[in-house]
Amino acid sequence: MASAANACSPSFSAANSSVSKPKALSDFYLRFRNINALSLRSKRVGLPVLSFSRIRSPRISASSPQVMDQSVGEASSKAPTIVEVDLGNRSYPIYIGSGLLDQPELLQRHVHGKRVLVVTNNTVAPLYLDKVVDALTRGNPNVSVDSVILPDGEKYKNMETLMKVFDKAIESRLDRRCTFVALGGGVIGDMCGFAAAAFLRGVNFIQIPTTVMAQVDSSVGGKTGINHPLGKNLIGAFYQPQCVLIDTDTLNTLPDRELASGLAEVIKYGLIRDAGFFEWQEKNMPKLMARDPSAMAYAIKRSCENKAEVVSLDEKESGLRATLNLGHTFGHAIETGFGYGQWLHGEAVAAGTVMAVDMSYRLGWIDDSIVKRVHNILEQAKLPTAPPETMTVEMFKSVMAVDKKVADGLLRLILLKGPLGNCVFTGDYDRKALDDTLCAFCKS
Amino acid sequence: MASAANACSPSFSAANSSVSKPKALSDFYLRFRNINALSLRSKRVGLPVLSFSRIRSPRISASSPQVMDQSVGEASSKAPTIVEVDLGNRSYPIYIGSGLLDQPELLQRHVHGKRVLVVTNNTVAPLYLDKVVDALTRGNPNVSVDSVILPDGEKYKNMETLMKVFDKAIESRLDRRCTFVALGGGVIGDMCGFAAAAFLRGVNFIQIPTTVMAQVDSSVGGKTGINHPLGKNLIGAFYQPQCVLIDTDTLNTLPDRELASGLAEVIKYGLIRDAGFFEWQEKNMPKLMARDPSAMAYAIKRSCENKAEVVSLDEKESGLRATLNLGHTFGHAIETGFGYGQWLHGEAVAAGTVMAVDMSYRLGWIDDSIVKRVHNILEQAKLPTAPPETMTVEMFKSVMAVDKKVADGLLRLILLKGPLGNCVFTGDYDRKALDDTLCAFCKS
Repeated sequence: MASAANACSPSFSAANSSVSKPKALSDFYLRFRNINALSLRSKRVGLPVLSFSRIRSPRISASSPQVMDQSVGEASSKAPTIVEVDLGNRSYPIYIGSGLLDQPELLQRHVHGKRVLVVTNNTVAPLYLDKVVDALTRGNPNVSVDSVILPDGEKYKNMETLMKVFDKAIESRLDRRCTFVALGGGVIGDMCGFAAAAFLRGVNFIQIPTTVMAQVDSSVGGKTGINHPLGKNLIGAFYQPQCVLIDTDTLNTLPDRELASGLAEVIKYGLIRDAGFFEWQEKNMPKLMARDPSAMAYAIKRSCENKAEVVSLDEKESGLRATLNLGHTFGHAIETGFGYGQWLHGEAVAAGTVMAVDMSYRLGWIDDSIVKRVHNILEQAKLPTAPPETMTVEMFKSVMAVDKKVADGLLRLILLKGPLGNCVFTGDYDRKALDDTLCAFCKS
Repeated sequence: MASAANACSPSFSAANSSVSKPKALSDFYLRFRNINALSLRSKRVGLPVLSFSRIRSPRISASSPQVMDQSVGEASSKAPTIVEVDLGNRSYPIYIGSGLLDQPELLQRHVHGKRVLVVTNNTVAPLYLDKVVDALTRGNPNVSVDSVILPDGEKYKNMETLMKVFDKAIESRLDRRCTFVALGGGVIGDMCGFAAAAFLRGVNFIQIPTTVMAQVDSSVGGKTGINHPLGKNLIGAFYQPQCVLIDTDTLNTLPDRELASGLAEVIKYGLIRDAGFFEWQEKNMPKLMARDPSAMAYAIKRSCENKAEVVSLDEKESGLRATLNLGHTFGHAIETGFGYGQWLHGEAVAAGTVMAVDMSYRLGWIDDSIVKRVHNILEQAKLPTAPPETMTVEMFKSVMAVDKKVADGLLRLILLKGPLGNCVFTGDYDRKALDDTLCAFCKS
């Protein structure tokens, strides 16, 4: 994901005409009606279904307007809202709030040792690098900060770019007690985190996410890594940061398209485990699109709470955590097949979510009201609801075959099942439903 | 480290004339006498000294000939000797014995999933790849094995070669339930282990070490990684295997020079924590050099017991584990400064051990009998006792400055202190002793 800077909003409709006029939609609705949902359940193979209904955290507020306003009030004041990621001796706080980069003590309490390497990109550096260096060093003369500025974009999330981080760290003679700071969007967070995991077999790191995507999803939970030409995030590590610092002010410079991309992950939390949050989003999407600070702070906080809870229960993705990848298997195929960086991650996830929802409906696992609500909310967020027209069934299949959720040759998917807010992670589905979904969304 | 194959034994004396005629020795003995040991202790700075005396494991047999013969009898029979590495839910066995690759059940019980990738090199593959594939698949038709054959040698332990492992794994569509098998020496084990740690954020792996170096040291304990042009093992992970399978028969094809290189690490265990083992080596070095199977099996077993105990007590190297790096800081500087692959790892460690022992003596921490015994045993093992003549003080200093044991700018070293079998890991030493050691061993 690229990050911040000029507020130009390149439309993805150039790449995919179906976004602005969802003609494909009526197409596949039509096909739905010709399939007997029961017959689809006949061919079952493989691993057991892991079924997940929403687990309501005691910390997660109900979505009534009163409660919402209260938590928003907290999050937009100078005192940060804190969401804890509970992982035993690797637990860490997520700080959320406005103006947090002006509170040096928040960052400094998590820097061990005297040396810091800030990893950022050429879009974010002009905007926030000085501010972060100031936050790290103000009143703290013993700490010295180096920085490495990478090119911006998903297409640079590769080994060649990663090596630039190692080169800088080694040239700067950083040692095991140093701290890496990721300043940027999801690409920077993933690369900096993996570099921190591998440099000298592991050094401390801190996440300062500057995009909605990174703030609500990728900076939390310790998944780090890089892409391989044949697939996304295939090389990496589970590696937890010391803290995540979300200064919501950094969203002021975020392009509209990046904003929408991040909202795809916000919508995901509602669909897989938090119906109340989804309903709140249905009412408040215009506010989120208008960057209303209170609404945005609430969406970030509730997303982080959902993510923190899932990660605490299943750090290494043996089951539950995989549900956070709703739409991602289809989405990764789009990103890889279409070329990294053509679509933003959230755009691909949005189209992938529609495909997963389509397949869930074909399997008879959800009713059509959910299908419609998903389309509506994604359209409100100006996100795509179908893959690029150049994607073929074969492109999907070849990339999905190397997905990390394949086990012993069987592709497991996250699919919705039951009332809104419930999903399953399973390889136990009729292959025909998958084929039909792919055919419905691809011209060839 | 290269591995196996033709038994030619290229001499390192071409690279360093001081090996065959240790004239440097008398030189620095002379200098020793001019230094007041007490004055060297005056300038103390930095971190606290971590002092380690030998901790005798209940499992480690005493070194009396009777006990030795008994354990040798076990290790050389078909039933493997088993040394456990105790790391909670990441514990694993080390199997040691002759003919273990002819016992498929040993390997197969540790393969989860249906897909295996054997990572090996072009020296070892012609010798043992078929045998290993057979051991993985005999009576086990559900398992399919792919392999990737890398070029042999320390100079290929880099990111470019590592990417070949990822390429192969992804092209073969391996998934999270696959197992990587490292078949070869330390370079293969380190690279395969790091690839397993990073592929899909972590898959299972098994070590089948085929060199003394790998069998007594690098395959045990989960340190994995690759070199950077500016320093050894600077990029990697702590990642434990499912098991280590040491078939001592693989040593039959090992070149003499490789054999000696591995003995440098065997000697290390005696020096840092196991005086009884060192004394046994002093008596049995001719047998080890002649590849006496019983002596070799005992040396491997006792080395693995020492390593397993240290790793169990300090997996992530917060203190005790660092002592396993006796001679390695100087040694890494030689490998990096002289060019990866010019000297074998153990050759560099041997010269580095002499330097660390020299410095310990200059500090007044050991008496000269230990200095002499170290020289004698390394000479018996036909290992170098001084760095290559091309190494300068500046080369040592620049590489040592990026060593992983630097903390907040202070280089910590493993030095001997007290009676044989005792060492410290400390940054609290007189800088002059280090300078004097470097000057004593370098022409400029």
